Amino acid sequence: MKEATLKEIAEKLGISITTVSKALKNYPDVSLKTKDAVISLAKKLNYSPNSFAVNLRTKESKTIGLIIPEIVHHFFSNVINGIVDEAEKNGYLVIILQSNETLALEKKQVELLINKRVDGIIMSLSNESNNDDHIKEIINRKIPFVMFDKIAKLSKCSKVIINDQKAAFNAVQHLIDNGCKKIAHIRGPLNPQNSIDRFIGYKKALEKNNIPFDAKLVYTCEHVTFEEGRAFAEQIIKEHSDIDGIFAITDLVAVGVLSYFNDAGIKIPEQVSVIGFSNWFMSQVITPKLSTVDQPSHAMGVESFNLLLEEMNCHREGIPFTPRTVELDTHVIIRESSIRVNS
Amino acid sequence: MKEATLKEIAEKLGISITTVSKALKNYPDVSLKTKDAVISLAKKLNYSPNSFAVNLRTKESKTIGLIIPEIVHHFFSNVINGIVDEAEKNGYLVIILQSNETLALEKKQVELLINKRVDGIIMSLSNESNNDDHIKEIINRKIPFVMFDKIAKLSKCSKVIINDQKAAFNAVQHLIDNGCKKIAHIRGPLNPQNSIDRFIGYKKALEKNNIPFDAKLVYTCEHVTFEEGRAFAEQIIKEHSDIDGIFAITDLVAVGVLSYFNDAGIKIPEQVSVIGFSNWFMSQVITPKLSTVDQPSHAMGVESFNLLLEEMNCHREGIPFTPRTVELDTHVIIRESSIRVNS
Repeated sequence: MKEATLKEIAEKLGISITTVSKALKNYPDVSLKTKDAVISLAKKLNYSPNSFAVNLRTKESKTIGLIIPEIVHHFFSNVINGIVDEAEKNGYLVIILQSNETLALEKKQVELLINKRVDGIIMSLSNESNNDDHIKEIINRKIPFVMFDKIAKLSKCSKVIINDQKAAFNAVQHLIDNGCKKIAHIRGPLNPQNSIDRFIGYKKALEKNNIPFDAKLVYTCEHVTFEEGRAFAEQIIKEHSDIDGIFAITDLVAVGVLSYFNDAGIKIPEQVSVIGFSNWFMSQVITPKLSTVDQPSHAMGVESFNLLLEEMNCHREGIPFTPRTVELDTHVIIRESSIRVNS
Repeated sequence: MKEATLKEIAEKLGISITTVSKALKNYPDVSLKTKDAVISLAKKLNYSPNSFAVNLRTKESKTIGLIIPEIVHHFFSNVINGIVDEAEKNGYLVIILQSNETLALEKKQVELLINKRVDGIIMSLSNESNNDDHIKEIINRKIPFVMFDKIAKLSKCSKVIINDQKAAFNAVQHLIDNGCKKIAHIRGPLNPQNSIDRFIGYKKALEKNNIPFDAKLVYTCEHVTFEEGRAFAEQIIKEHSDIDGIFAITDLVAVGVLSYFNDAGIKIPEQVSVIGFSNWFMSQVITPKLSTVDQPSHAMGVESFNLLLEEMNCHREGIPFTPRTVELDTHVIIRESSIRVNS
């Protein structure tokens, strides 16, 4: 804000420039009445007050934007915690937006974040999104940007991922090692990269073990829900009574499978072994305890923020930054739903 | 934005006023290069571009702020979904902030939302907060404001709540009706109103049934976690081997209790009946299925947004608005963890 404007406000209200400045910075020793008068006049003069003096100097907002598909997933809640914790340590506030898995809302949210001048953006894409215009817009505007988990492979930005193919391969290999010969896969929607990669991992594990791939054993979720898990479990056992293993795209779906099998009296793991993905909290407390793949969600949040911070620092200093991809390790967690004596 | 400024930008860049206007509104038929040049110059002239033409006229941002303690709780995820769904229908974007249950972060977030000029704020307080200055600041500034679930009783704003005392009373009465005579309560921290009210409901139910209150049967959570549920279950059974009922502040804690009892071979509900609170998704899939109180989380979100919308509409039209409190109904959900033959 220019001295001239401060002076103008001060003169019009008959107060000192210091008081105007303090009012705009929200100092506690200025009365609310004065603050409101100053802010109201500043608005008329088209000045957007910002209480963080340091930001006025550096033009940083010290806020970052985070867009995620669905907060209700335990995985995303944990990523959020990782990001918020790390951001707080570094003096940043995190604005969270939920795209509800839709491209339309995601686009509006990107536009909002650009307009709100956040210093950087972290995103996990909706199931409908890929390398769309709004993503290109962030990159073209050179806004520091990190994608995690559900990424657009071709976008030129930093990414924090796991190796979904390898992780899924290991999960299915574990079922095979425990004697499973006919393994169904409840996969995610066709668009998201992680859903594609987990499906490829499943196929590769079968191939490696000379088990022929059968497209009829693959069931595709639309919304990746508990209810779909239950419904597919019923369908699978009806269509393939000799099934002995199920690999589900996420724990939520796997818990649906367990829930149906428990109700239907199908023994896990004696008749069918089940493994999920992402080590959701619930997987430890359900009966039988669910085998799964440990997806390091909190670490993914921490890593995403730190990568963004690095780019924001470069951005501020005018140093070139080359986007990079960080791959985090996963491992199979073996619990009751998949341990059994080989038959 | 004044015509004069538009003209100034147009002249300096050698383009038409229409192009400047389109660039600022982010029209797709203006090149990114031009947009960046316009925005950069607009910044220098202290003009904050806003792509929503309608908002320039009405001075509304069409965004609201939502501050919640912890996204990882299933209850809050559901409230968020209710708010985001309803906001979207009405053309509002929702900025979500997570206070991590700390007053310090919550204060910063309120400041951020005020500075970002959101049209309204919805909040559920952190365990450390009450009718503090930042809350008063929102109310004094006449920013449309709704509190839900964890509220400050004395704050003069709209509130969406359940009757925690009555709900807790009914939960404990249900245990008593099923034959429980010695009921422990794992309560929440001392500060939050809902934690206080559930404790009062517990006491009232005992009193009504002529069961003497024993302070030694009350255990206080610090963080309301699964782990605390497990630890208190162990402590309770050690200190009171004849306990026959437990009422836990939330399902997460109750699931911890079930988990410990399952591992320790303590039969639920034969030896101890357990009831939780809030009908978290997990409560349906754990073994035994958990009895609980249905807290209408999604409806709470919808109701909170609609109350805020009403106030925002009044605010825009200059019509006085009187804050009001909406109380949503709850009911006890009886599942396996509390049904038993009276002994």
